Amino acid sequence: MITTTKNSELEARLQHKIDLKTKPVGALGMLEKIAFQIGCIQQTETPVITRPTIVVFAGDHGIASKGEVNPFPQEVTSQMVYNFVQGGAAINVLSTTNDIHLKVVDAGVNHTFDKDIAITHAKVAMGTKNYQHVPAMTLEELKTAFQHAETIVTDLHKEGVNTIGFGEMGIGNTSSASLLMSYFTQIPIATCVGSGTGLDQNGISKKQRILSEVYQTYNIQNPTEALATFGGFEIAMITAAILKAAELKMTIVIDGFIVTAALLAAHAMQPNVLDYCLFAHTSNEQGHIKMLDFLKVQPILSLGLRLGEGTGAALAIPILRASVNFLQEMASFESAGISGETTP
Amino acid sequence: MITTTKNSELEARLQHKIDLKTKPVGALGMLEKIAFQIGCIQQTETPVITRPTIVVFAGDHGIASKGEVNPFPQEVTSQMVYNFVQGGAAINVLSTTNDIHLKVVDAGVNHTFDKDIAITHAKVAMGTKNYQHVPAMTLEELKTAFQHAETIVTDLHKEGVNTIGFGEMGIGNTSSASLLMSYFTQIPIATCVGSGTGLDQNGISKKQRILSEVYQTYNIQNPTEALATFGGFEIAMITAAILKAAELKMTIVIDGFIVTAALLAAHAMQPNVLDYCLFAHTSNEQGHIKMLDFLKVQPILSLGLRLGEGTGAALAIPILRASVNFLQEMASFESAGISGETTP
Repeated sequence: MITTTKNSELEARLQHKIDLKTKPVGALGMLEKIAFQIGCIQQTETPVITRPTIVVFAGDHGIASKGEVNPFPQEVTSQMVYNFVQGGAAINVLSTTNDIHLKVVDAGVNHTFDKDIAITHAKVAMGTKNYQHVPAMTLEELKTAFQHAETIVTDLHKEGVNTIGFGEMGIGNTSSASLLMSYFTQIPIATCVGSGTGLDQNGISKKQRILSEVYQTYNIQNPTEALATFGGFEIAMITAAILKAAELKMTIVIDGFIVTAALLAAHAMQPNVLDYCLFAHTSNEQGHIKMLDFLKVQPILSLGLRLGEGTGAALAIPILRASVNFLQEMASFESAGISGETTP
Repeated sequence: MITTTKNSELEARLQHKIDLKTKPVGALGMLEKIAFQIGCIQQTETPVITRPTIVVFAGDHGIASKGEVNPFPQEVTSQMVYNFVQGGAAINVLSTTNDIHLKVVDAGVNHTFDKDIAITHAKVAMGTKNYQHVPAMTLEELKTAFQHAETIVTDLHKEGVNTIGFGEMGIGNTSSASLLMSYFTQIPIATCVGSGTGLDQNGISKKQRILSEVYQTYNIQNPTEALATFGGFEIAMITAAILKAAELKMTIVIDGFIVTAALLAAHAMQPNVLDYCLFAHTSNEQGHIKMLDFLKVQPILSLGLRLGEGTGAALAIPILRASVNFLQEMASFESAGISGETTP
């Protein structure tokens, strides 16, 4: 059960504390909003960010094995997992640069990893099934995915992580995300489809045609069925991880198109989850801004990224740190002996 | 003499290196552009950021002693210098959070500081004169301000600083910046005036009327005269510091409205200076976006800040670090053994 963070008494104290800092009222813009929200999440005037962590879930998609919707071949998913382990991917560099812990999870990659490599083994299956023919996963598999993700987040929380971002790797997963987006926002599927990792206009048209057919094949009744039908394992795990993190009152940093699709499912299940979410960035994947508009939320960054892996979240975490730190460390007008506003 | 960074042979090598990283081409968006530009500035495929530093120049403005254009009284300038020294201001917190060195310079505050306090003493005078009556400073004073700033930047460069941001503190300095903006962009002065640290609509109207009168009083002939006439000492020093930093091939992080006004002067003197500048953010001071449009440049962040002090620059430096680091540390498709794009 996810409770709202709303608490008018605390909110008044937080706003007062922010306004007394040595700066014109409102002059730190979005940093003030972020500090306020994290204060509400932690129910304190002195919030802190401890052991910020990004969890990257990797999974394969049945549809991608045919190569009809994805410019990169399916084996790139497992190759990128090895790249994560070796520290060579963008998310490795950005996490290290910004002092963020990184965890990589095999949610359902179509490859057997040696059990000794430095990932969390939570494979549900060797990739999802192709939803052109059958649902991506069974309800039983979805349940398993949820359980794995809940355990991972609960363990991180026990280790002292109070701020968590999610990333993903899965060739073909913008297709799943587009299908989920269409279901949860009721925006027509063609409008939800973008270029993914780099389709040209012909590729986008083909992807639109294929996914429109898929969308019409099913008559989805609820969020659980949507996740099971369209997949993937990495998206389902992110949905569950978001819900568990909110339940544990963690600050959740939402990344781009795929992670926001997972959030749409979480939000449909428990609307209060939004109280715990900060939106790292607007991605260049064209549907992402529409998702953010649907949720009526404002992203922190807009850097033209379209990479996934949690890279936007990794870049936003320094802004979260700056926000919490100004609230903790800046002097007030009174403590610094500074004159207040007069009327000019 | 500031030389252009343009070098088509190096640019081709840099772009090739960026494109071979393990990500879809262009997927790191603005980070790719930043890495490319810093590579060009340093004329290398392996750029680094060393000892990033923000220099905050503080100065008082003759017009502010009357309190007609500024909601905060003039003594706040010196009070804020003490706040910087004590570590209580926003720029202190953001610099510390992001591992940035901070230097505070008395460019011309209307207050005598003890010579032992931890600032750089470069006072030209006890504030500028009121340009409602006479030019803010003499050409001799402007020359002194330029010399001080050049020495400060040269010394930092000798200490190993290769990335520099500028901030400012000076009650009344949005008025100087508006006047300079109007001169350099030829946008009517009323359109260049905003709320500064927090004027209401009546205050803005009054400020527009006063500054329109000031603007019409003078017949400025060149950038030097513009700086001397409208001031202030902190703005003139930032102009000189930007020019010197570009001459020394440092990466320059441009902050908000005031610093960009100083850059407009530097740009009018030596257009190549733009090759060395990254634009940290769009400020909420309404004229700032118009300045950026005039320069045809794109800001990195847009966080609704309107505080000055170099706070936007301090928040952008982690993005610069991330950009340089991905170029240095990410694996290439070949080194990671990852399959490239196919045609879907």
